[in-house]
Amino acid sequence: MEILKVSSKSSPGSVAGAIAASVKEFGNVEIQSVGAGATNQAIKSVAVARGLLTPSGHDLVCIPSFANVVIDGNHRTAIRLIVELI
Amino acid sequence: MEILKVSSKSSPGSVAGAIAASVKEFGNVEIQSVGAGATNQAIKSVAVARGLLTPSGHDLVCIPSFANVVIDGNHRTAIRLIVELI
Repeated sequence: MEILKVSSKSSPGSVAGAIAASVKEFGNVEIQSVGAGATNQAIKSVAVARGLLTPSGHDLVCIPSFANVVIDGNHRTAIRLIVELI
Repeated sequence: MEILKVSSKSSPGSVAGAIAASVKEFGNVEIQSVGAGATNQAIKSVAVARGLLTPSGHDLVCIPSFANVVIDGNHRTAIRLIVELI
């Protein structure tokens, strides 16, 4: 599954385009975010991506979980959203 | 559908308990959040609620969208998560 890493500075429109492209090709995509700002951009991106897929009769659901990641040697808890085409 | 309003100060554990109770009774629940901190707590709550439902063989998906809300006379954009039992 492709992994999109989203930061607090990511544009929801751009991430939404990447989500739509990935789910059309693979049926699902994983989005990883660390911190409240990044997680907010991630969930907004999924909301925007739903709109991009509406014309083709598709919709998205997301399944959130926690993940441990290492960033610059520091252990952090990330939010992992599995996004699936329905 | 029941609506749970989540703030940046909400405890994910407590909200998760409310999510689990609502989906067991009604099959779904709506979570509303305004701002990055609140949306982060909302999505963490869904991740925790998934764990609460695992022993009963259930899981959750969430479907994000935008909503316009009025708070203290000010128009704000909220994130609405429809959480469904699967």
